[in-house]
Amino acid sequence: MLYADENSFDIGAKITRTKPVLLPIGAVEAHGPHLPLGTDNILASEYSARIAAETDGFVLPVLPYGQVWSLQDFPGSLTLSNETVTKVVVEIGESLYKQGFRLFVPVSGHLGNMAALKDAARELYAKYPDMIILHIFYPNIQKLAMDVREGKANHHTYIHACEIETSLMLYLSPENADMSRAIDDPPILPIDADFTPTPWQNFTKTAVLGEATLATAEKGEYLIEKTLKTCVELIKLEQEKIRKSTEME
Amino acid sequence: MLYADENSFDIGAKITRTKPVLLPIGAVEAHGPHLPLGTDNILASEYSARIAAETDGFVLPVLPYGQVWSLQDFPGSLTLSNETVTKVVVEIGESLYKQGFRLFVPVSGHLGNMAALKDAARELYAKYPDMIILHIFYPNIQKLAMDVREGKANHHTYIHACEIETSLMLYLSPENADMSRAIDDPPILPIDADFTPTPWQNFTKTAVLGEATLATAEKGEYLIEKTLKTCVELIKLEQEKIRKSTEME
Amino acid sequence: MLYADENSFDIGAKITRTKPVLLPIGAVEAHGPHLPLGTDNILASEYSARIAAETDGFVLPVLPYGQVWSLQDFPGSLTLSNETVTKVVVEIGESLYKQGFRLFVPVSGHLGNMAALKDAARELYAKYPDMIILHIFYPNIQKLAMDVREGKANHHTYIHACEIETSLMLYLSPENADMSRAIDDPPILPIDADFTPTPWQNFTKTAVLGEATLATAEKGEYLIEKTLKTCVELIKLEQEKIRKSTEME
Amino acid sequence: MLYADENSFDIGAKITRTKPVLLPIGAVEAHGPHLPLGTDNILASEYSARIAAETDGFVLPVLPYGQVWSLQDFPGSLTLSNETVTKVVVEIGESLYKQGFRLFVPVSGHLGNMAALKDAARELYAKYPDMIILHIFYPNIQKLAMDVREGKANHHTYIHACEIETSLMLYLSPENADMSRAIDDPPILPIDADFTPTPWQNFTKTAVLGEATLATAEKGEYLIEKTLKTCVELIKLEQEKIRKSTEME
Amino acid sequence: MLYADENSFDIGAKITRTKPVLLPIGAVEAHGPHLPLGTDNILASEYSARIAAETDGFVLPVLPYGQVWSLQDFPGSLTLSNETVTKVVVEIGESLYKQGFRLFVPVSGHLGNMAALKDAARELYAKYPDMIILHIFYPNIQKLAMDVREGKANHHTYIHACEIETSLMLYLSPENADMSRAIDDPPILPIDADFTPTPWQNFTKTAVLGEATLATAEKGEYLIEKTLKTCVELIKLEQEKIRKSTEME
Amino acid sequence: MLYADENSFDIGAKITRTKPVLLPIGAVEAHGPHLPLGTDNILASEYSARIAAETDGFVLPVLPYGQVWSLQDFPGSLTLSNETVTKVVVEIGESLYKQGFRLFVPVSGHLGNMAALKDAARELYAKYPDMIILHIFYPNIQKLAMDVREGKANHHTYIHACEIETSLMLYLSPENADMSRAIDDPPILPIDADFTPTPWQNFTKTAVLGEATLATAEKGEYLIEKTLKTCVELIKLEQEKIRKSTEME
Repeated sequence: MLYADENSFDIGAKITRTKPVLLPIGAVEAHGPHLPLGTDNILASEYSARIAAETDGFVLPVLPYGQVWSLQDFPGSLTLSNETVTKVVVEIGESLYKQGFRLFVPVSGHLGNMAALKDAARELYAKYPDMIILHIFYPNIQKLAMDVREGKANHHTYIHACEIETSLMLYLSPENADMSRAIDDPPILPIDADFTPTPWQNFTKTAVLGEATLATAEKGEYLIEKTLKTCVELIKLEQEKIRKSTEME
Repeated sequence: MLYADENSFDIGAKITRTKPVLLPIGAVEAHGPHLPLGTDNILASEYSARIAAETDGFVLPVLPYGQVWSLQDFPGSLTLSNETVTKVVVEIGESLYKQGFRLFVPVSGHLGNMAALKDAARELYAKYPDMIILHIFYPNIQKLAMDVREGKANHHTYIHACEIETSLMLYLSPENADMSRAIDDPPILPIDADFTPTPWQNFTKTAVLGEATLATAEKGEYLIEKTLKTCVELIKLEQEKIRKSTEME
Repeated sequence: MLYADENSFDIGAKITRTKPVLLPIGAVEAHGPHLPLGTDNILASEYSARIAAETDGFVLPVLPYGQVWSLQDFPGSLTLSNETVTKVVVEIGESLYKQGFRLFVPVSGHLGNMAALKDAARELYAKYPDMIILHIFYPNIQKLAMDVREGKANHHTYIHACEIETSLMLYLSPENADMSRAIDDPPILPIDADFTPTPWQNFTKTAVLGEATLATAEKGEYLIEKTLKTCVELIKLEQEKIRKSTEME
Repeated sequence: MLYADENSFDIGAKITRTKPVLLPIGAVEAHGPHLPLGTDNILASEYSARIAAETDGFVLPVLPYGQVWSLQDFPGSLTLSNETVTKVVVEIGESLYKQGFRLFVPVSGHLGNMAALKDAARELYAKYPDMIILHIFYPNIQKLAMDVREGKANHHTYIHACEIETSLMLYLSPENADMSRAIDDPPILPIDADFTPTPWQNFTKTAVLGEATLATAEKGEYLIEKTLKTCVELIKLEQEKIRKSTEME
Repeated sequence: MLYADENSFDIGAKITRTKPVLLPIGAVEAHGPHLPLGTDNILASEYSARIAAETDGFVLPVLPYGQVWSLQDFPGSLTLSNETVTKVVVEIGESLYKQGFRLFVPVSGHLGNMAALKDAARELYAKYPDMIILHIFYPNIQKLAMDVREGKANHHTYIHACEIETSLMLYLSPENADMSRAIDDPPILPIDADFTPTPWQNFTKTAVLGEATLATAEKGEYLIEKTLKTCVELIKLEQEKIRKSTEME
Repeated sequence: MLYADENSFDIGAKITRTKPVLLPIGAVEAHGPHLPLGTDNILASEYSARIAAETDGFVLPVLPYGQVWSLQDFPGSLTLSNETVTKVVVEIGESLYKQGFRLFVPVSGHLGNMAALKDAARELYAKYPDMIILHIFYPNIQKLAMDVREGKANHHTYIHACEIETSLMLYLSPENADMSRAIDDPPILPIDADFTPTPWQNFTKTAVLGEATLATAEKGEYLIEKTLKTCVELIKLEQEKIRKSTEME
């Protein structure tokens, strides 16, 4: 299941057009006092492993650097440009295509990567129309979060080091969440935050966008299992498309 | 020691101008039947950890994709362009600079990355002359290999899935080397191999550039410990330079 | 109010740091049988004029070409790449900065431009931190649309040639909407539409993403006036910021 | 005739290989006290409309931003780089090609765009050798200007806000020329003006490169009608080429 | 006088702000049966040497590759892109600036390079406003050619392997012109040649754009000496500017 | 033999798939007091001429600008970026391919160009797999130098203005080596010189990396003739490959 654990002699037999290849992508980014800088890498890796387990997919090594514009000035954060993230993903996609794969699934644990992934997907689609690229960030999690959130929603799309993301960690990697240091710091976002470049230090000192103390593994389980189900459905749908187009050839 | 395990609240106090930050870089690349595709990632990570242990450094998450031109057509190999590897390393270096670090040490487990790393180092040097970048690939290993090699040397710079590299794995990560499948396949390199683009399938079917069966942990220990000593010396030398230039400010 | 109607002798006296400069951006794109290809240009121009009227702003000439990925294969559509839209907007922003303006407001009538505008805003912000860039697409229209929509919502963000966008035209430019040709064609979007590159011809033959016949000028008035109010508030907020930072110099 | 007024349902039937598609390109640039910043946009649009009327062509929306290097420091001027103008025009050309057009006619009202247009034409020609691109700036106007000019010629190629260009406006858009403010300010160009980068503020304070008071609608008529005739001949010549090559397929 | 003949120990004393540094640029391009492919390189080198002799300048090694779009499909022609010519010249200019020079004079023997040189000059001007760049191609030669031409002028700017250019060679490098093979082949240029990409094979089989048999060393002498005088005047003018701005510092 | 001396009428008959086309590449770079800045250009040109003489090859005009990072701050040095050298060589290679050549041999007299040449070769190989590119810098000269060197070897790859390179000049172009000014200045390279960007002024004031006084024409002859023999063998090997692949078509 872990692509990099395979060897060159044996992997050939496992390469098929419908095999999903999952690329976990995260970031090194401030996540408050209770979660590590590598939170999004851990989540992307664990989540990808779950998807792979249900779809007999390969999990590539995590790409642990992402686009961290909003939090780049917080201690410890590292950022790549959108352009560079796109290039890396496109070139990995090209390599996979040449290897014979046709279903490439970048799975981000970090919302900031999604614009780059969408660009990468379109670029690959233009070059290799017979490869399908699924770009995934916990499908529909914003809606599902309403079902479990006890604290305040601070923004229609952000989930960061808060009740929600901490819950994901408590379910997927509890040993990496130090709840003894969890804090609540729901910010008031300025009304222009979505309309003008707004580094997050403008409205939070902690990078905890909510009430981390409200996080539970149960909430994480709900969100992961629900979104995971969608991921599996999406992959099966794409596999079906590939099968049909292969038959038609 | 693992950078990504730190959190944003605590890392600030650990950021100093002389703290070495090690970036392990590897590749996903064919390494014969006995070593996994991720060999260079494992080696770069383990080797970086050793350096960090001796120099009180930080180890960043491994960048697991590299420039794999020569072996790109072997099953399982994935490649980035030189340009993209350079961009990623430059942008990570810029982030580290802005965080306050001044000693950045990309450590590659894959020779193919070194041209990109040299370019990245020069680009960063031009922008941030007060940051030192050390680009490392087992310093002087080609000479040291002469001390332990029992098989043939096939090339003046390549060490790949052979007696030498397999020995490194037997010392640093024996659980990832399956010696029961090790083979000997020393190639005869065409005389123009260094002078014209030469994919390795032109001269090897296995990607094992030598006699993997001759590998031992002892040989690996010799090579790792000797080169490691040089790495530590280099880092101390650079730290001394930084200290001096800081005093002069 | 129209920037290009000014002459070089007189405009100097009108250039201030708080003067908002609005750049309408649209696209040439299929909009069904009842709306012209230039719909987004008309809307962006009219909407910008309204904003300018309320804020004493300048309206630049409309940039009539945009990123039209999803509908590029429909008759008449023309598309620029994200990268090119970003470059144009950045260079216009740079020129405005050099002219002395500090409040630049790209106003798109086309959702597909927003990723490029966000990139442009961040690029300008990095270069000219004392210029504020507001990137606007009818603020919060998706939520407001719920208040007036009688037909079905087909997607959480798309409004295209449907009840909603046609209503905007009936309010802002009724002479350009031919309601005698309006049709209803609400599509069923595939569940993977947000997760994989999906040209719209995959799910619609008309490019009318809803029930255009339900459009009314009243609905348009509600949406325009409500969102306009937010635009005006945003501009006043930014002007206040500029005034404060100017005082501090 | 106005491309953007068409709708997606009807335009398909009007797309043919010989249909000329005119792209007016101008600039926002200082034009003295009597002409607006948007002068070149107005001229390009009006002139394109005349060409379209005689050749049954489509007129695209004016691209109102151009390369304004020489006058970029005058109040109100906005400039794009050559590279960006080229990219926009190439991408519009590509879209037109995919739509089925084969005769693309960028028409500039601004001399500064011509280098970018030539590059764009060559780039499109290399990609789509069966599309013809005509890049037009009042063909041969420098020679024809000698027939009507009463004032001094200041340069062998420049016509800017002077007797000549003001005459074009008086003929094509008299409502946008305020002759009560027309001035005469023929500059003495330094002898190195063509051989070294020379911003125009080095030799003019007004940007009026001649005697605007000598402008008349009659002179404009002569220049427009003469050059227009050439445009029409050029288009007919290209249409004939397209017809022949189509027959040969 | 030849820059590359200097050595590193002695050149330092000769570097001054007013010293002109001439960069001859040519091309490898078809020039009919009587002139070699390297004609423009020979001319640029010889001409630069004359300028240097009169202005105590340095002559850099000739850049022997240029932009040869129009004749690229003729036997023997080699071409660079405009972009690449620009990059080379900009980087040479940057090096000269860092060495302490302030007067950089690219001298082309090939008209096709002039657009790239103009771009390079503007790029250098933006970066180093205190360096002057003169881009030279036989100043005003088109007008002067009227004084000596006995054959037909085929185009208002082209002089290629014809009476005029062959005369330049007969004066500057007679040993490289084989008049026994000179031919007359004045083409009729299509009327759209200046308005659409037009490879020269469309109108000439020989690349001799005129009557080479009418060439004489006397005509060459007239053109070279007249244009040379302008070059010297230009350089003196720029030196005066540099002197004045240096005094003001 | 000199490509640029050919004319367009005659060269066609000499273009074959196996004809080697040699591109000498050098640099303008400090070479101590006894060798000129253009040393590498002279060497590359002379050496290429020898290769051509033995292989009936064409010699292109020398590209006299190269990547001079390490010595860029010495008086007189000029540098291009790696990227630009690569672009120039790729575009020359493309032109040669279109002309019908299939064996392109860039021959550098400057070690600093080799990374760019390797990149260029790979780029051309990817585009034109049926063209062979040989990138040459005195094959194996470092090993051969051990046979003749009387002074100290200062580095495993550098040969610069020292006993070795001066010997090459004494053999290939004695009139350009002023032995009366030759000096000995063997530097002690810092141990991190290969691992971090290290401008050579950090360890040498003369740029003479060794004992130039020990140079002799005999040593030069040995090195040139030995390496030349390898070049000829390489070219014959590639010609054989081309012949075989041509037969198979």
